[in-house]
Amino acid sequence: MSLLQLPEEQLLAREQVLSHAYTQWCAAGLKLDLTRGKPSPAQLDLSDALLGPLEGGHLAEDGTDARNYGGLDGLPEAKRLGAALLEVGSDEVLVGGNSSLELMYRVLFFSHFFGLRPDATPWREQGGVKFLCPVPGYDRHFSICQHLGIEMVPVALTGQGPDMAQVEALIGQDPSIKGIWCVPKYANPTGETYSDETVARIAALGRIAPKDFVVMWDNAYTVHDLHTPGDALANLMELARRLGTQTSIFITGSTSKITHAGAGISFLASAPANLARFRAHLGMSTIGPDKVNQLRHVRFLKDESTLRALMRQHAEILRPKFDRVLQRLEAALGGKEIASWTSPRGGYFISFNTLPGLASEVVGLCRAAGVALTPAGASFPYGRDPQDSNIRLAPSFPSLEEIDRSMEVFVLCVELATLRQRLASRA
Amino acid sequence: MSLLQLPEEQLLAREQVLSHAYTQWCAAGLKLDLTRGKPSPAQLDLSDALLGPLEGGHLAEDGTDARNYGGLDGLPEAKRLGAALLEVGSDEVLVGGNSSLELMYRVLFFSHFFGLRPDATPWREQGGVKFLCPVPGYDRHFSICQHLGIEMVPVALTGQGPDMAQVEALIGQDPSIKGIWCVPKYANPTGETYSDETVARIAALGRIAPKDFVVMWDNAYTVHDLHTPGDALANLMELARRLGTQTSIFITGSTSKITHAGAGISFLASAPANLARFRAHLGMSTIGPDKVNQLRHVRFLKDESTLRALMRQHAEILRPKFDRVLQRLEAALGGKEIASWTSPRGGYFISFNTLPGLASEVVGLCRAAGVALTPAGASFPYGRDPQDSNIRLAPSFPSLEEIDRSMEVFVLCVELATLRQRLASRA
Repeated sequence: MSLLQLPEEQLLAREQVLSHAYTQWCAAGLKLDLTRGKPSPAQLDLSDALLGPLEGGHLAEDGTDARNYGGLDGLPEAKRLGAALLEVGSDEVLVGGNSSLELMYRVLFFSHFFGLRPDATPWREQGGVKFLCPVPGYDRHFSICQHLGIEMVPVALTGQGPDMAQVEALIGQDPSIKGIWCVPKYANPTGETYSDETVARIAALGRIAPKDFVVMWDNAYTVHDLHTPGDALANLMELARRLGTQTSIFITGSTSKITHAGAGISFLASAPANLARFRAHLGMSTIGPDKVNQLRHVRFLKDESTLRALMRQHAEILRPKFDRVLQRLEAALGGKEIASWTSPRGGYFISFNTLPGLASEVVGLCRAAGVALTPAGASFPYGRDPQDSNIRLAPSFPSLEEIDRSMEVFVLCVELATLRQRLASRA
Repeated sequence: MSLLQLPEEQLLAREQVLSHAYTQWCAAGLKLDLTRGKPSPAQLDLSDALLGPLEGGHLAEDGTDARNYGGLDGLPEAKRLGAALLEVGSDEVLVGGNSSLELMYRVLFFSHFFGLRPDATPWREQGGVKFLCPVPGYDRHFSICQHLGIEMVPVALTGQGPDMAQVEALIGQDPSIKGIWCVPKYANPTGETYSDETVARIAALGRIAPKDFVVMWDNAYTVHDLHTPGDALANLMELARRLGTQTSIFITGSTSKITHAGAGISFLASAPANLARFRAHLGMSTIGPDKVNQLRHVRFLKDESTLRALMRQHAEILRPKFDRVLQRLEAALGGKEIASWTSPRGGYFISFNTLPGLASEVVGLCRAAGVALTPAGASFPYGRDPQDSNIRLAPSFPSLEEIDRSMEVFVLCVELATLRQRLASRA
């Protein structure tokens, strides 16, 4: 039943019981971590063939020696892999190094300091530019904006993606808005997948936005389904091509949560003219990405059915962990009307909301009891959650036992913080 | 004997003979390439154990799982490798991705747009900054400056490194000079190694230069001796530490011409305070470099004696190629007083000088005959060689037979262009 309707004496009694339990947890010397969306060792093991010999030799299908310099664009077979993963044409994709975040950073700083198109004024010289940030979102996207001095404008997420009426209205009013961050499938951290209508409206933003507007489409979880069939995401590039807005589209992805995190290959998709400019920019700083690793990945991932089978194995490992978190939350907090949370069908996170004003308190209580959570506010621009209610839970790395103990502490802290807030407000 | 002293009729006769030979070469349909300093397949083969299984498992010596995210700084054993290669302390080195050029680019654009130290005004906001560029030098260094809008000031090379009197005078006069590019050992393209005195004076630049001055010490050929013993290069960081100028020092290196080019690992060395700021900057764009590749390299290169033995094998392959170029030059052009060239004891290039005003002509003649050379001027800021005399020869990639044919065409073109210039000037 709702905790909020309990009479004060019961609240007080419950607070004492939980305080006592909390003190015991604090003394238990736990060291648990639910902070980051890292794959677990069991998931990494699935791709250990990558640590074995490189199958098929060092020559790419076009005869390129992967062991030598060159190839800013990526090997043809690696481009095909990227094109399949991001659902774009091979001429619309470029293969990067081990980090898709690096590619996103490059798109932004290139736009900011140099201008993305030959005729564009760099954002920086336009007297203050802004970016739309659906919230809660991915902290590293927001760090890039902050680092570059791009003002962030939060936009609500609806469960079907960003509130598009709000997005369109903001863009219509303010030409200094130069882009939007999107994690369109199993969003970090809400887990939502953008609806067909949302995707169609995002594809059309290039019609109402300035010419140098960019849709940063971080499709990090495109094949990361926990259940079969996974969520279906409409094809943004195809829609954009139809509308003639494809130069506003920048899609990124990587193999980091497919094979080995941080030791894989990354992809950037955009209109060919954008990629040509981007390559010229990249060419200032590197002779090319690691092509041996491209071959390793292409040959290990082979084809779509091999990739899908691998992702099903990931799901087998991840699903019980997500289920356990959700069971624990439901068992301890269900019906109490003091919290809400998402039940994602894929991705790496569960997004949890306390009552307003409690997230920092809960994270602090957990920390003191030895359970590390992503800092409250991390999923918001400038690290500030105006409601102070969102907490991102990342169940992928810890074991089931660690999840059990972490969640026991977590739900206790949520209830304890809520009780204390209630009691304080009545006092 | 000197071609320049021949009587006109002999010049004319010789011109006709060479013109005829040149026409025949043009008809021969050659397709040869002496443009870039790429290792040859035989050199790449030396490191093919990297394509085999990763020895010793995926855990680093500190227990880090190399297959997962994290580790901006590099694994401890990879830092040690970098420290040994660049002759600095482990706390003075950071491990990058597959490209040391990327690290150089980052140092410059970070200084340019953000400022390298907490109290520094970004170069870009100082109303025009400059960089000293010893010439001839590495085209990609110059591209970075040009890309960032940093004005390049050429400085003469003496055979012992840059003309330090000129360097010191320029820095003393002009506080807008913010750095200097150096390839201190087997310089690209001159092959010279900086003398002890030069290195000592470079270490001391931090005393006369502005606080945000950077010595970009691209030690790309530190173990790339063609002969034993190789040239000895004084330890810049050690000297700088003694003088208290170590925050001006940025040393880079990579395994690209040790193992597989573009598929290795890179290193940046500087004062620990600089590295801390640099890491914070890097952390905006990446979660870390590929640690699996760090392990591959550390375990393949093992220790200094293994590394040295590998480099001796490279020398066995490279030396005959350099010797062949030098023999061909000497046989065809020796004593004619129409050209000069370097005889490097290491590195990847031979630097060749025609008489003034002929380099572009020679490169053009060679191109028309199917022999690709690095564009004339490429080794100078803005691609402009004021003398139009320098040509960079890169003998590492082609086979001995290809070198033979390329050099036959090359020496012919040099002589032909010289004769034509002489005849035109007398007419």
